[in-house]
Amino acid sequence: MAAIAPAPLAPPEALSLFERTRHRTTNLTERLRPEDMMLQSMEDASPAKWHLAHTTWFFEEFILKPRLPDYVSPDDRFAFLFNSYYTQAGPRHARDRRGMVSRPDCAEVAGYRAHVDEALAGLLSSNRDDADDIASLVELGCHHEMQHQELLVTDLLHGLSFNPLLPAYRDPEPLPVTSEVPLTFTRHDGGLVEIGHDGKGFAYDCEQPRHPVFAPAYDIADRPVTNRDWIDFMEDDGYGDARHWLMEGHAVATRESWEHPLYWWQQDGEWWTFTLRGAQPLALDAPVVHVSYYEAEAFARWAGARLPTEVEHELAFRDTPINGNFLDHGQLRPMPGQGVWGDVWEWTASPFTPYPGFRPPEGALGEYNGKFMVNQMVLRGGSCATARDQMRPTYRTFFYPHQRWQMMGLRLARDV
Amino acid sequence: MAAIAPAPLAPPEALSLFERTRHRTTNLTERLRPEDMMLQSMEDASPAKWHLAHTTWFFEEFILKPRLPDYVSPDDRFAFLFNSYYTQAGPRHARDRRGMVSRPDCAEVAGYRAHVDEALAGLLSSNRDDADDIASLVELGCHHEMQHQELLVTDLLHGLSFNPLLPAYRDPEPLPVTSEVPLTFTRHDGGLVEIGHDGKGFAYDCEQPRHPVFAPAYDIADRPVTNRDWIDFMEDDGYGDARHWLMEGHAVATRESWEHPLYWWQQDGEWWTFTLRGAQPLALDAPVVHVSYYEAEAFARWAGARLPTEVEHELAFRDTPINGNFLDHGQLRPMPGQGVWGDVWEWTASPFTPYPGFRPPEGALGEYNGKFMVNQMVLRGGSCATARDQMRPTYRTFFYPHQRWQMMGLRLARDV
Amino acid sequence: MAAIAPAPLAPPEALSLFERTRHRTTNLTERLRPEDMMLQSMEDASPAKWHLAHTTWFFEEFILKPRLPDYVSPDDRFAFLFNSYYTQAGPRHARDRRGMVSRPDCAEVAGYRAHVDEALAGLLSSNRDDADDIASLVELGCHHEMQHQELLVTDLLHGLSFNPLLPAYRDPEPLPVTSEVPLTFTRHDGGLVEIGHDGKGFAYDCEQPRHPVFAPAYDIADRPVTNRDWIDFMEDDGYGDARHWLMEGHAVATRESWEHPLYWWQQDGEWWTFTLRGAQPLALDAPVVHVSYYEAEAFARWAGARLPTEVEHELAFRDTPINGNFLDHGQLRPMPGQGVWGDVWEWTASPFTPYPGFRPPEGALGEYNGKFMVNQMVLRGGSCATARDQMRPTYRTFFYPHQRWQMMGLRLARDV
Amino acid sequence: MAAIAPAPLAPPEALSLFERTRHRTTNLTERLRPEDMMLQSMEDASPAKWHLAHTTWFFEEFILKPRLPDYVSPDDRFAFLFNSYYTQAGPRHARDRRGMVSRPDCAEVAGYRAHVDEALAGLLSSNRDDADDIASLVELGCHHEMQHQELLVTDLLHGLSFNPLLPAYRDPEPLPVTSEVPLTFTRHDGGLVEIGHDGKGFAYDCEQPRHPVFAPAYDIADRPVTNRDWIDFMEDDGYGDARHWLMEGHAVATRESWEHPLYWWQQDGEWWTFTLRGAQPLALDAPVVHVSYYEAEAFARWAGARLPTEVEHELAFRDTPINGNFLDHGQLRPMPGQGVWGDVWEWTASPFTPYPGFRPPEGALGEYNGKFMVNQMVLRGGSCATARDQMRPTYRTFFYPHQRWQMMGLRLARDV
Repeated sequence: MAAIAPAPLAPPEALSLFERTRHRTTNLTERLRPEDMMLQSMEDASPAKWHLAHTTWFFEEFILKPRLPDYVSPDDRFAFLFNSYYTQAGPRHARDRRGMVSRPDCAEVAGYRAHVDEALAGLLSSNRDDADDIASLVELGCHHEMQHQELLVTDLLHGLSFNPLLPAYRDPEPLPVTSEVPLTFTRHDGGLVEIGHDGKGFAYDCEQPRHPVFAPAYDIADRPVTNRDWIDFMEDDGYGDARHWLMEGHAVATRESWEHPLYWWQQDGEWWTFTLRGAQPLALDAPVVHVSYYEAEAFARWAGARLPTEVEHELAFRDTPINGNFLDHGQLRPMPGQGVWGDVWEWTASPFTPYPGFRPPEGALGEYNGKFMVNQMVLRGGSCATARDQMRPTYRTFFYPHQRWQMMGLRLARDV
Repeated sequence: MAAIAPAPLAPPEALSLFERTRHRTTNLTERLRPEDMMLQSMEDASPAKWHLAHTTWFFEEFILKPRLPDYVSPDDRFAFLFNSYYTQAGPRHARDRRGMVSRPDCAEVAGYRAHVDEALAGLLSSNRDDADDIASLVELGCHHEMQHQELLVTDLLHGLSFNPLLPAYRDPEPLPVTSEVPLTFTRHDGGLVEIGHDGKGFAYDCEQPRHPVFAPAYDIADRPVTNRDWIDFMEDDGYGDARHWLMEGHAVATRESWEHPLYWWQQDGEWWTFTLRGAQPLALDAPVVHVSYYEAEAFARWAGARLPTEVEHELAFRDTPINGNFLDHGQLRPMPGQGVWGDVWEWTASPFTPYPGFRPPEGALGEYNGKFMVNQMVLRGGSCATARDQMRPTYRTFFYPHQRWQMMGLRLARDV
Repeated sequence: MAAIAPAPLAPPEALSLFERTRHRTTNLTERLRPEDMMLQSMEDASPAKWHLAHTTWFFEEFILKPRLPDYVSPDDRFAFLFNSYYTQAGPRHARDRRGMVSRPDCAEVAGYRAHVDEALAGLLSSNRDDADDIASLVELGCHHEMQHQELLVTDLLHGLSFNPLLPAYRDPEPLPVTSEVPLTFTRHDGGLVEIGHDGKGFAYDCEQPRHPVFAPAYDIADRPVTNRDWIDFMEDDGYGDARHWLMEGHAVATRESWEHPLYWWQQDGEWWTFTLRGAQPLALDAPVVHVSYYEAEAFARWAGARLPTEVEHELAFRDTPINGNFLDHGQLRPMPGQGVWGDVWEWTASPFTPYPGFRPPEGALGEYNGKFMVNQMVLRGGSCATARDQMRPTYRTFFYPHQRWQMMGLRLARDV
Repeated sequence: MAAIAPAPLAPPEALSLFERTRHRTTNLTERLRPEDMMLQSMEDASPAKWHLAHTTWFFEEFILKPRLPDYVSPDDRFAFLFNSYYTQAGPRHARDRRGMVSRPDCAEVAGYRAHVDEALAGLLSSNRDDADDIASLVELGCHHEMQHQELLVTDLLHGLSFNPLLPAYRDPEPLPVTSEVPLTFTRHDGGLVEIGHDGKGFAYDCEQPRHPVFAPAYDIADRPVTNRDWIDFMEDDGYGDARHWLMEGHAVATRESWEHPLYWWQQDGEWWTFTLRGAQPLALDAPVVHVSYYEAEAFARWAGARLPTEVEHELAFRDTPINGNFLDHGQLRPMPGQGVWGDVWEWTASPFTPYPGFRPPEGALGEYNGKFMVNQMVLRGGSCATARDQMRPTYRTFFYPHQRWQMMGLRLARDV
């Protein structure tokens, strides 16, 4: 397991992380009704109820079952229903039919969670020889659950957006009044440098090994692209002018009739957007969000710039604290100043590929990241829906270039 | 409205029918959980919650709103959400996204039903000049709701069938032991006869006008085709042998890998089927159900017979009482004897076309049946999920030839 | 074979018909280049080269091979390549890939035709006991080839229409100047009548048996609907207003963005259309052509009328001579006067179903018509692309309600 | 234009290259019939006739029209028909309908080629100030045409493969008898090195600028993977075992029922394949070809190795002469020995992304490579269908990971 968690937590810390993480998940769903938790609006998204069950299955499948011979699951068939994509953990239910599973219902899933929580707390509290291994796996399971917390919220937003009544996940709040933040760049020298995780604290296998790369000098913007910037792009026929676009991107934009980011619409001459706090007027100085890689790349070309590579992003931000104005789930707020990251995932110019010498762990957990390394692009940073424990400069998340439903934005870079 | 309900009920009878019908719908959903009521497994099917709301909207839209100027709907946007296909009643929500609407939730929909029930009961009890018109529309609304009762149950069965746990809608019951009923035929003379509804009691516009047709003499079977018969067909390569099939039917069967009726599977050499009472061993002497027109037509050709026309069916059964062994929702039971109908909808050889002189009512209600008169086939009879009030010899239901999720079976006929 | 050709030709007449028919097919392709003969623009259409080969295969497969033990085909694999849909004649090549077969090339297919022509002429000239049977099959083969002559021409028109250069199949000719022909109706009494083919001369199985039907009195228009009429419909929002349409029809029209008949466009305020003589200004008083059943049905409803049933059409026209102004392939010409039919196929309100007592012949030829009897609508009449030998009042052709690429128009009828 | 052709040819050399290239294209089609030149079997492939016309259009559009004010095209509409994807050169015909264009026919396209050849020869022979610019563009046009030569041949092979008669492009020849070549690896040190084109001779923009990269030490195989190796993979359930595969790759393989490379089949226990010389028994010691990136990547993982990056490939082969046994179009031959490249394109592990500082030329020619830089993987080397003039160690071709119809194979690498 070393590749996944090079410096595992001590068991008591793991238990604390476990309780904190599980509790946060429950918190996220406390205002939802059973009907909301059934929504699956596309194959990429899953019902909230499924996220609750799948994250639980992860602990059961990879920790409880192999280590506790007497462990009894509430229902053996959950292993089939709630395995996501681990072929080495056995067959699984069709991903696009998760919304067709009304039973177990929400109450039964809550019972499943409690059952596993109790068994796992017991395991972590027992004095076992393999306590470190278990702690390491629990840490992984918690980070896995944090990823699903973010998906749960973004999947739900997508599901609610299909309801003409536009129901709000949380109560609306007034946005602070702010003014435009000018766009400035910081120069970095590059050279022969090292990137990747250094083994202190938790990291996924794909953040490792730390390795040398050569980076030319570059400039990188001090803030993400804002909604205001994006409207300039739109008003300059940014979506229509094929010269700015990757050919495939323009084909998708045309086929899907993209003329603005996801969840935007115009009403009485003003732009509105659908957020976790319901329909809101667009905050012009907040980072633009819900744009695809194709759009981000076209914007950058239109702006006479480019997207940073993931190397450039990591070099630029590894010594920068994350945004002190971290928000809980809701609409993105205008940005306070320079050097800020963590409000919005930032598309990079880098396809998701293995680092030199990448070696995934043996067995089903080796499927965690490695088998996705084609056709996806890396995003760096984190968003208002990302757990703070999960934000670190080496973190690589990855999505397909056409996907928009995550909290995705961008930052500009340019050659020197 | 004369075309739809030629001999309207008196207002008190209409109120009684209304209360009975609304109560029966509620009864049908009383064991469901909110999660179950969200299931939409295909565009043809709708969530139970939607059926509850749409049938309510029908009374609100066509009776309350035009007649009660002070009537206030719980939410004006329900008119958009719960209109099914009436273009003259305004725009409507996409049919294939009904499962994406978590709000109003089940409790709110129950409130909507209560709100409309109360307003309608008040209207029916008031002494108005247009009381007969209202009673006539209420009767139509009740028959409309009975159709949706059947759809609610069959849509739910379809939705539950996608759950690997195969949850049961009702508790299982043992099936009575019976033996094979031999297949016999009754001869009918035909000639110049009249078919269609005579105007006594309720009927839809498409059952009218009663009109003369010429029918040659024919034989018609005394019982529907059974599961036992169907297994004979299967074992004789009935699905594989293209000679029995309409070309389009065989193309569909091949593409969809049909090798047996919907919801069947084989387990330890025995056939099982998924029913409203969950997984059940197949009752060999019950009518076969969940077969498409394509399959029914191929079976008949294989059997050296054909499907009856709707004229032949109506002539044969208009003087026959419906099955005294009418069942509530569950698995079809073996058949007791001759001359029985009403356990299973029976595909006929007749495309759904207008009767000569057919004239739908003016306005949105004219869309009820008329705009579906292409590419669909008529079924006659009724099933264990059909409300008794809705079963009559002139009733024409209609579905596409590839559809299987209704309680569809068949009966053989042959030329003399 | 009685069902197909009740009164077979004498062998010398059959030979004469054969030579005339085969020659006409060759004539139809004489201006085409090999490249044109490869075009397959959709699954419904076939390349001209395939039509030439398939009609040849028909004679080889059903006449030469069973009767001449020493017959040798130029290539045994042609049986696989050029069988259209006869499952009982063995496996066949995928219909949508006929355009992928460059070899045999056109010259080789011409050789195949000559080879079969010679063998068949020899067979017809020999003095055999089964000469009448052979003549009967040759007659069927010729009528089959006439059907493919029409398809060859309409498929080619469809293929050429995808070329932005809009190449013409024949040289253009000026259209005669005409004026509007008023729309009048003729009344028919109906009653208990007989329809279907009487067995004198050639007919397909599906035109038989002649049988009694009851028809109410009706009015039928004296001329087809014209382009001028159709423009009125378009200008009255005929395509947009869902009230006129079958639900399924309006869904298709919306999805396909239909706003006018196939092959029409507007240029400098004038309507143009693509014809066998290339791009032409629309002849306002010619029958409208290339409209689907859905459009025809909507037009009729908009006009306060309906389409005639096939019974009504047959009764009205069985004593009317076909249009004396029969045209060879080119643009439809304005209509000279009343009682005319045969310029354009006319959609009827009748689904294609078997006549009572219909019995297809045994073996592969029984697949000719019978296996298409679902989801298609009957058209009556004939068009400028129909061979004269093939036009008769009992002839039933059939197409899907969304199809437009044939020479399809309509005529109005109404209840009395 | 410097980015595309840093060291342009002198005009006489350009003319010589032009004549040689144009002649070679004609040679490639000399045995084809017009029918063959119409084949378009998928959107990715184009008819041979289109390749002949498009490569001609390229010279006309980018050289003749801007430089010769009096130049007259044979048909102005060819600019619409034969533009492939250059949005800045105006609108263009739909890519998936190129097979629908029968006119201009092959003879007219040959005339178009002759017309442009003559005009271009005249331009190159005239004594102009911009002669160097013209020579540079002609060189680009010739390299463009060489790319289309390869596509013409591979597209044709794909088209012919849909014909059950499996027609051969060239006459078959017996394969030399050879024996298995053992798999050995050569070690490379890596380090901080430079890759990319150095500006001497022709190169595309995407091969530049030459730039430093850091590469760890690695081993690379001395020969490509052979058919014999591939059969081992297949026999070890290589296609079925999801553990070896990228998730997306396995989904594609399952959906498409891939169980072997494209064009393979088994016959009497022996493997056969469809080649430019028709159906051939598989040459076990020839490089495997017609495998997708997904398959190549799975094979490498199964073999305990990986694909090389494009950096590793370029470093390994930049000092190696290309295969002395270069073949003309036909089946790949068994490999003679070590260090060979150029028989088969080799998938690398590298997504097609811009080199640091990449700057495409202004205008439509800037669309040549830059707009494809997403979701495609780089292949290095060259194949038996690649023009020798086009083979160089820095050449980057790119295809989607699911594509198989090019001459694609692989070579193994591994970490040290």
